[in-house]
Amino acid sequence: MEIREAKAVDWPAIWPFLREIVAAGDTFTWPRDIGEERARSFWMKEPPGRTVVAVDSEGAVLGTANMNPNHMGPASHIASASFMVAPEHAGRGVGRALGEHVMDWARAEGYRAMQFNAVVETNERAVRLWRSLGMEVVATLKEGFCHPTKGYVGLHIMYRLL
Amino acid sequence: MEIREAKAVDWPAIWPFLREIVAAGDTFTWPRDIGEERARSFWMKEPPGRTVVAVDSEGAVLGTANMNPNHMGPASHIASASFMVAPEHAGRGVGRALGEHVMDWARAEGYRAMQFNAVVETNERAVRLWRSLGMEVVATLKEGFCHPTKGYVGLHIMYRLL
Repeated sequence: MEIREAKAVDWPAIWPFLREIVAAGDTFTWPRDIGEERARSFWMKEPPGRTVVAVDSEGAVLGTANMNPNHMGPASHIASASFMVAPEHAGRGVGRALGEHVMDWARAEGYRAMQFNAVVETNERAVRLWRSLGMEVVATLKEGFCHPTKGYVGLHIMYRLL
Repeated sequence: MEIREAKAVDWPAIWPFLREIVAAGDTFTWPRDIGEERARSFWMKEPPGRTVVAVDSEGAVLGTANMNPNHMGPASHIASASFMVAPEHAGRGVGRALGEHVMDWARAEGYRAMQFNAVVETNERAVRLWRSLGMEVVATLKEGFCHPTKGYVGLHIMYRLL
């Protein structure tokens, strides 16, 4: 697996699984019926943000991540990131590789902390993974997320100093 | 004191104190040297967001607040808000009146919760005021804010169900 910058030509490989994940509506705080152009503008970050893809040895896109400042001005040393792994490639370490890549990027760019703004508490696999990368649940927004089958569940904010 | 919708013609009365507050750099996570056009585009919200001003009996602008969805999609029932009170009118209850107005607006619009994303922990007056309006500090992002004289201080996330 290799992680590299996402280019405009990668979008057609990202959009099918990104749409599927967002439409499922159980992990992402995006409109479930988001259109392609809006999704592309949200996901493909301009500098100082950045978007990457994880690809296999044949160049197939397995997952993607983006990263950017979470705040501005006197809090611009806090980074943020988002992750999407193609469901058919789950369980192969793609999320972990992307997470490690993002932490390394943030340190190299001089950020002092990483903050994930909205991790759905029922997304236990993600919560476990981010914890293993040093992220801590610093708050759970009660009833912060309307889950399609479980109703209102908590929305974690995760944070770590880098 | 009256609180009403902010109109484009109110901006020239807002900008001087907004600029002063942002330039002081001890309470807001905005670039301290922000330009007027960018500041206007950040502060004057389009629907579904909204911006209001607090004015005295002679029409002078004492303070301003804006409010908007804090998240999208399955978390779009969480609102957010920001507040600026002209320093020369501090201590007259302007912030409290704006805070109460915002909570009432959010309830009336059907939001289920209010989240403030970045309240500097050394801004004790604001923390106390928001607590008195039912907001709780649910997390403090360690070293989240670079204060001009105190160095890296915590950044509170405050939250309440409505």
